[in-house]
Amino acid sequence: MLLCNDPIKIREFITLCPPLISKQRREASRLYQTYIIMGKLINDFESYRTKMNDRIMETANTNIKRFFALDTTTYADGALDVKTKEMLGLVASMVLRCDDCIKYHLGKCHEAGVNHDEMNEVFMIANLVGGSIVIPHYRRAVEYWDELNSPES
Amino acid sequence: MLLCNDPIKIREFITLCPPLISKQRREASRLYQTYIIMGKLINDFESYRTKMNDRIMETANTNIKRFFALDTTTYADGALDVKTKEMLGLVASMVLRCDDCIKYHLGKCHEAGVNHDEMNEVFMIANLVGGSIVIPHYRRAVEYWDELNSPES
Amino acid sequence: MLLCNDPIKIREFITLCPPLISKQRREASRLYQTYIIMGKLINDFESYRTKMNDRIMETANTNIKRFFALDTTTYADGALDVKTKEMLGLVASMVLRCDDCIKYHLGKCHEAGVNHDEMNEVFMIANLVGGSIVIPHYRRAVEYWDELNSPES
Amino acid sequence: MLLCNDPIKIREFITLCPPLISKQRREASRLYQTYIIMGKLINDFESYRTKMNDRIMETANTNIKRFFALDTTTYADGALDVKTKEMLGLVASMVLRCDDCIKYHLGKCHEAGVNHDEMNEVFMIANLVGGSIVIPHYRRAVEYWDELNSPES
Amino acid sequence: MLLCNDPIKIREFITLCPPLISKQRREASRLYQTYIIMGKLINDFESYRTKMNDRIMETANTNIKRFFALDTTTYADGALDVKTKEMLGLVASMVLRCDDCIKYHLGKCHEAGVNHDEMNEVFMIANLVGGSIVIPHYRRAVEYWDELNSPES
Amino acid sequence: MLLCNDPIKIREFITLCPPLISKQRREASRLYQTYIIMGKLINDFESYRTKMNDRIMETANTNIKRFFALDTTTYADGALDVKTKEMLGLVASMVLRCDDCIKYHLGKCHEAGVNHDEMNEVFMIANLVGGSIVIPHYRRAVEYWDELNSPES
Repeated sequence: MLLCNDPIKIREFITLCPPLISKQRREASRLYQTYIIMGKLINDFESYRTKMNDRIMETANTNIKRFFALDTTTYADGALDVKTKEMLGLVASMVLRCDDCIKYHLGKCHEAGVNHDEMNEVFMIANLVGGSIVIPHYRRAVEYWDELNSPES
Repeated sequence: MLLCNDPIKIREFITLCPPLISKQRREASRLYQTYIIMGKLINDFESYRTKMNDRIMETANTNIKRFFALDTTTYADGALDVKTKEMLGLVASMVLRCDDCIKYHLGKCHEAGVNHDEMNEVFMIANLVGGSIVIPHYRRAVEYWDELNSPES
Repeated sequence: MLLCNDPIKIREFITLCPPLISKQRREASRLYQTYIIMGKLINDFESYRTKMNDRIMETANTNIKRFFALDTTTYADGALDVKTKEMLGLVASMVLRCDDCIKYHLGKCHEAGVNHDEMNEVFMIANLVGGSIVIPHYRRAVEYWDELNSPES
Repeated sequence: MLLCNDPIKIREFITLCPPLISKQRREASRLYQTYIIMGKLINDFESYRTKMNDRIMETANTNIKRFFALDTTTYADGALDVKTKEMLGLVASMVLRCDDCIKYHLGKCHEAGVNHDEMNEVFMIANLVGGSIVIPHYRRAVEYWDELNSPES
Repeated sequence: MLLCNDPIKIREFITLCPPLISKQRREASRLYQTYIIMGKLINDFESYRTKMNDRIMETANTNIKRFFALDTTTYADGALDVKTKEMLGLVASMVLRCDDCIKYHLGKCHEAGVNHDEMNEVFMIANLVGGSIVIPHYRRAVEYWDELNSPES
Repeated sequence: MLLCNDPIKIREFITLCPPLISKQRREASRLYQTYIIMGKLINDFESYRTKMNDRIMETANTNIKRFFALDTTTYADGALDVKTKEMLGLVASMVLRCDDCIKYHLGKCHEAGVNHDEMNEVFMIANLVGGSIVIPHYRRAVEYWDELNSPES
């Protein structure tokens, strides 16, 4: 549905909406399918990040581009493997309480094969070191991690 | 109204929407009643917090559960009363600039009977110690505090 | 359109929505015009900020009002000009990672005549000093800066 | 003793130092008496703070002086009493991890009659909200609090 | 030497000091031996930490003691091994810029067998995520890490 | 004097110390001359910074070296001049409360010709944005700025 990007409301709308606005209804159905396949939080985060990183590459100066390059090479496989580095990036992001950074590293940790028990231990270190002020970010991290681990993602 | 959860827009929609989509209209009316009774910001915060805390209790390891237990016992009545402790929790949340933590402790301060003049003095200490960077969070705190103190809440 | 304040979706809705709900359609058209003229992000930020600052002036105590007065006089033309001071306010807001403060000072920097190359050097200092944790805020800053510099703003 | 301001070392020096350098020895005895009466940490903090605040009042501009004035009036007795306000200032200082601010508010809490059990509950809220990263500051706070509560202080 | 705990100055003093103050000279020699064996920074950090943790265990309330217990169990071998957890604790401490926490986790990383190349990659992630504001802490971390890895430690 | 690096105590020692320990006395005189010429705080900061940066260049990996290179090029003359950039670096360092970073940028601001009135306006923005938690760092900044501007420096 064009007015809303919440999959639950979209499903409700499909049921409720009057027959005559059939074009909207088809659109709503189509969007809902997308969410089932992809996961709304992941999709929102990834699409905005990609859009703005593209814009940064168009507008940034050389130093900024070098800083972004460094951000990539730092997490490459080296003396420490990618999985360890991504957990390090995640815990740093959690104690500094940056939701987007947390989402990014959760995605990378998922790709690198961090399992549920390992992730819970990273979460605990972040909560302990950073304190209860981290808890709202931890809540959102659990929601995102769930989406990453849902069968459809 | 299924497409939107802003009570003002819901009321406008009820006035505007054509007679034939009556089911949506009834739903919108019902939702609007809820917002009148509860307050949208409070409702949004509380429902997400409850949902994710439930999920955390399903997924977390023992240490995380102990940390959450500690988060509860710390604010219990003791040498300092609950009202003082909740103001301490609030000022700490404000200088660390965590909106969700601020909402949580505003709710608890309201329950504990903190009045407007007292709350303004907590706000001032937070703004002074934390600096003008706290102001946007203070704005949102005032909005939430207003909602907590509205006759309908 | 009353149910949504995303200009792209509004435009799509105008195209899609059935002829009979003509009042909504007119309203949607009108809102869309506003967004074209003003810029959605700027509009959202400015209107909320104004609303809550008004509310603060109604409710705050004397010390808070003095603090807000100090927040104004600090950025006035003095030994340093307004342009330099607003860049100082911006870089401080970026390393402390406060999106609303960043938007505020981006608007003031734009008014004070900071150009693209200068802004990129402020962005770089913020990214360097504050680290990659600043990047998500930098993305949103670029989006807002683009809107400030779009021909319609 | 002129070369050292550690009371324990001063006492040891008095015992050890050869009879001929009697002037140093007398000076060491005198300094040691001061430390017994005042407490070294308190003395170091207070004397530096006073010295630099004096220098600031000589050099600062009007806005800075207003900011310092605001810092004083904010903690004055009002809707909340001084004791509560100083505990608020302390917990804010602890979660932001500023040792000098912690010392200042510990001193003020001591004057305002905060007792050991109350202080431990403030310490716990600071540790919980701010996390284990607060612990080194908590250690130094306990040391300073002990000095404030020692019979000689 | 009783007046000074800098091993280089102690050695210089031993060379310089006049024969008659032989007791001081013997003491200085003894202290210097200790520094050779142990490492001054490690010794200073460990002894203060132990002293104050002992004092905390004497004075703290039950919640604080539980928080300290949690701080221990969190880093125990589990789904993640001790080495990984200590690197997580270190990177969190570095981006939050707490020198004592950094020292503590450097010591634990050293015990857990983190090698130089691995440590440099942890350092880089901390510098990148936390920004150049981390550099002074990184300098002190390198100094401490060198001491941990010196043949005498 | 070998046991102490406080110039005031050194001068007192020179006056007090018994004639027989003449070698120490000469050394003390020499050191005191150095302090008169250089300024103790500047000397301490610069010498440690240089020593550890040298050690970092010996031990760091390629990414860290690139990060340090970026730290240099970022403050070079460009669309913004060095003076403006150094004030940006300073205000960022003050709100993030890093004493060593503050000292570094104070030194650079001094070289770039920032005058007292300008510096006070930078200090005010830092205090305002960062809050009263910045004040202890502001005190140390004033002390260092005084030393930079003393006739001997």
